Amino acid sequence: MRFLFLGDVVGRAGRVAVLETLPKLRARYAADFVVINGENSAGGFGISETILNELMDAGADVVTTGNHVWDQREALVFIERYDRLLRPLNFPAGTPGKGAGLFKAANGADVLVVNAMGRVFMGDLDDPFRAIDEQLAACPLKTGADVIFIDFHAEATSEKEALGHFVDGRATAVVGTHTHVPTADHQILSGGTAYMSDAGMCGDFDSVLGMDKEEPISRFLSKIPSRRFAPSKGDATVCGVAIDVDDATGLARAIGPVRLGGRLSQTEPAFWDEEA
Amino acid sequence: MRFLFLGDVVGRAGRVAVLETLPKLRARYAADFVVINGENSAGGFGISETILNELMDAGADVVTTGNHVWDQREALVFIERYDRLLRPLNFPAGTPGKGAGLFKAANGADVLVVNAMGRVFMGDLDDPFRAIDEQLAACPLKTGADVIFIDFHAEATSEKEALGHFVDGRATAVVGTHTHVPTADHQILSGGTAYMSDAGMCGDFDSVLGMDKEEPISRFLSKIPSRRFAPSKGDATVCGVAIDVDDATGLARAIGPVRLGGRLSQTEPAFWDEEA
Amino acid sequence: MRFLFLGDVVGRAGRVAVLETLPKLRARYAADFVVINGENSAGGFGISETILNELMDAGADVVTTGNHVWDQREALVFIERYDRLLRPLNFPAGTPGKGAGLFKAANGADVLVVNAMGRVFMGDLDDPFRAIDEQLAACPLKTGADVIFIDFHAEATSEKEALGHFVDGRATAVVGTHTHVPTADHQILSGGTAYMSDAGMCGDFDSVLGMDKEEPISRFLSKIPSRRFAPSKGDATVCGVAIDVDDATGLARAIGPVRLGGRLSQTEPAFWDEEA
Amino acid sequence: MRFLFLGDVVGRAGRVAVLETLPKLRARYAADFVVINGENSAGGFGISETILNELMDAGADVVTTGNHVWDQREALVFIERYDRLLRPLNFPAGTPGKGAGLFKAANGADVLVVNAMGRVFMGDLDDPFRAIDEQLAACPLKTGADVIFIDFHAEATSEKEALGHFVDGRATAVVGTHTHVPTADHQILSGGTAYMSDAGMCGDFDSVLGMDKEEPISRFLSKIPSRRFAPSKGDATVCGVAIDVDDATGLARAIGPVRLGGRLSQTEPAFWDEEA
Ligand SMILES: [Fe+2]
Ligand SMILES: [Fe+2]
Ligand SMILES: [Fe+2]
Ligand SMILES: [Fe+2]
Ligand SMILES: [Fe+2]
Ligand SMILES: [Fe+2]
Ligand SMILES: [Fe+2]
Ligand SMILES: [Fe+2]
Repeated sequence: MRFLFLGDVVGRAGRVAVLETLPKLRARYAADFVVINGENSAGGFGISETILNELMDAGADVVTTGNHVWDQREALVFIERYDRLLRPLNFPAGTPGKGAGLFKAANGADVLVVNAMGRVFMGDLDDPFRAIDEQLAACPLKTGADVIFIDFHAEATSEKEALGHFVDGRATAVVGTHTHVPTADHQILSGGTAYMSDAGMCGDFDSVLGMDKEEPISRFLSKIPSRRFAPSKGDATVCGVAIDVDDATGLARAIGPVRLGGRLSQTEPAFWDEEA
Repeated sequence: MRFLFLGDVVGRAGRVAVLETLPKLRARYAADFVVINGENSAGGFGISETILNELMDAGADVVTTGNHVWDQREALVFIERYDRLLRPLNFPAGTPGKGAGLFKAANGADVLVVNAMGRVFMGDLDDPFRAIDEQLAACPLKTGADVIFIDFHAEATSEKEALGHFVDGRATAVVGTHTHVPTADHQILSGGTAYMSDAGMCGDFDSVLGMDKEEPISRFLSKIPSRRFAPSKGDATVCGVAIDVDDATGLARAIGPVRLGGRLSQTEPAFWDEEA
Repeated sequence: MRFLFLGDVVGRAGRVAVLETLPKLRARYAADFVVINGENSAGGFGISETILNELMDAGADVVTTGNHVWDQREALVFIERYDRLLRPLNFPAGTPGKGAGLFKAANGADVLVVNAMGRVFMGDLDDPFRAIDEQLAACPLKTGADVIFIDFHAEATSEKEALGHFVDGRATAVVGTHTHVPTADHQILSGGTAYMSDAGMCGDFDSVLGMDKEEPISRFLSKIPSRRFAPSKGDATVCGVAIDVDDATGLARAIGPVRLGGRLSQTEPAFWDEEA
Repeated sequence: MRFLFLGDVVGRAGRVAVLETLPKLRARYAADFVVINGENSAGGFGISETILNELMDAGADVVTTGNHVWDQREALVFIERYDRLLRPLNFPAGTPGKGAGLFKAANGADVLVVNAMGRVFMGDLDDPFRAIDEQLAACPLKTGADVIFIDFHAEATSEKEALGHFVDGRATAVVGTHTHVPTADHQILSGGTAYMSDAGMCGDFDSVLGMDKEEPISRFLSKIPSRRFAPSKGDATVCGVAIDVDDATGLARAIGPVRLGGRLSQTEPAFWDEEA
């Protein structure tokens, strides 16, 4: 089975690139399931209902989020109507929406998608390790789900790597988000789980985290906000990761980065070439 | 001119890989100048005089460090005898050693190496932006130095990217360290400065930051230390970055990642192929 | 009913003062129940079994702790044998010891003591608000306990005040610890709960947090550790708080600070004068 | 000489109390110099020109601030016209306004007022220890100023105490602000400097930091903002500290807390009684 994940979509530049690229990618890869992190898709801050629908129309099966999920406050309401929009699992009990769901893929597989948030240098949330552990216990690989994908929205590489090893052999893949920078440490861990510290953003890389660079630089220098952060408008790079799933085990056979458009070095996984 | 940088060397596994790989790389690339971050080379914590000499014997022209620089306390003393060992520039006035130096490369070029540390999620240090700005003012590209390389040891991608843009056009390259994970965002910024958020470590990637994974995972779960952190012993990946410098301008013509050995995807820059 | 609490005992100076002062205070006030925070009683870091027994022999009914609870690693073991030693409630499930207990006071009252830790500027723990809420639901004032005392070990005054109001009317008293500085904001909240942001330490106030001041000052200046922190040896001030409980409601009738010995201004509650 | 300092004025309730109380206090104490921290005087966030003038009309000689200084952006402009409004000294070079000034007291004494900000759990600023050290070197006690007062706006008690000892004998007084909770650790340090970790706020103590308590409590529970923070409207306690200066040495003879109005225990210094 073929799984595709795209990292944090940032603003209009990121959306335009994803809406244009994803339909082609989905077809070219014959992808069975696509997840996108949309926490920065609305002007860099949060997600609107309109944008959520655009991302799903473009080929996303599920949209995950992170610390910016409620920046557009309407999301607190409409998330209850969208089974396929997730917010971090380890928000306090009573938070609108949910952090995990079981979805049917194009090939009929049952895909558990889990969206969790790290705590190191982030907010004071519930323990993501235990929250994820409970999900895996309630819906284990093979007996509960054919594929288990975890979007771990976190800052520190230590926490991301530790979580990867913690679920190694119990999930198909753990992919990080939030730093907006793609990492080159994609690998299959010893237990069979695909891992990558960060998928990187879908946004303009002539920027600071996808936002116009002047204001962030100015704040580092002066410690005084001058204006709002605004998404950078240059051509975006679509950053993500492709995972080839072993249907017999639900574990990963291959993982490879995707970087298309914009300023970053271009890459696509070779492992689907023969068939695509 | 050809410049090579290797990221944080972690423990024996990292050292063995660097000592074995660097002499071959230096020859194969005909590299004119090599910098290595050695802050974790002594058992994962700091650097000893013996190890510093080993790294220099293997082909390092300069060794940079970071927040772990004083973990081996002898470094507070021997750093005064080693012109080619740098500690972060923006430590308080009066700190032993220095954070920048001008060195002669194999091709005769004058290379300014600057080692600075970020503040976001790190310690309370002097402002790295201003400290670097002063270095660049005192020793500008072309008039003061033929090449200017900045190892920016920092956690947050926002601070790293902001610094890259801040010195864009004024330095040959800004490469991040500290997260121990190589990023795939290497690019030439619009002003001509080569940039990469993190070079990644030279260490075993079946680990958490190059350290045995059991203890870090256990601490995330229990919040209680059980034993000391120890470097992971598996085969290391040598992670770094190659930069091709335009001798006319001192700016970058090309930047490409290096990942050799161990578990990560293997890569070397193609831009020196024809000549190497 | 008369309740006495003493804040973080720091090192030998703090212990000597408490061991000498507490028996007299307990008698003079005819106190029915005494709680002491002992997290820094062993050389400033943690607590030993011997010291725990000394504190209880001197008149403590229960000893609470905080982030330093495991600094003496033997505490991980002996806490299981001491019903009257508490560690923060909101440590992860599976942590040795417990964070709350119901104890019989001298006057026959059932006293629920809860020890919890804040998260703002502290570690990544479980939510203290929910953890405390569950304790209060399981053992409510009047039906489950005659008196409920909460030692909230936290850094930020915002989190302490918010917790006080959160349990106002449901607990007898919320007293903060951890900053080692007594606050002067003791009051009865509108719902009847006694509140004080920090009880202050039992230690030498010619110091930094009860430790010799040279090393902390040196670290603020140089960012380099020179030697270990050691408890300051000057005369300690015993800092704490006295609470007069309304036996009919279990809420507080009066709260007043105690500061005896050492350098701070001396004070004792006047509300027990007529009877003591 | 008689010196009076009032801590962070929070919103209308704090202003009303200060405007009503300060003229009487100034007269009753025959105070020679009055400093007020006004960083939260405008709706809890920053200070306006109108409010600054009100505070000065009511008897403030100098108004200090802290991390909230620019919350009302007009302060970036009008601070240049007000010699007697200070912002933290250790903001980056180029920040509008200044962090220290030499002022003439009612009795003719030259008073150096320094406003600095801590870094622990606060922003990434310049080193406050060195910044203050430079001020004291440039304008030493006795030769440069008759009185030196430092408002150290900081979170951590460790940093506050360390700074107190660092300048002990070189300044008349170091008083902390920012936690909005008055501490009871006022003392004359061994070198003669008066010290108090926090003056406390001028605001309603039936609140969280002077703000309506519902929203802060809700955020601790839900991690989702519901509405803006608004200053609490109940009767405010005016919190501050009185310092009796030895005119021969410029050091402190006595320090005592002031708490008037509102919910906190009421106190005034006794050391001026005979003469007032
Ligand atoms: Fe994001
Ligand atoms: Fe994020
Ligand atoms: Fe490192
Ligand atoms: Fe580091
Ligand atoms: Fe403590
Ligand atoms: Fe503590
Ligand atoms: Fe304030
Ligand atoms: Fe403040």
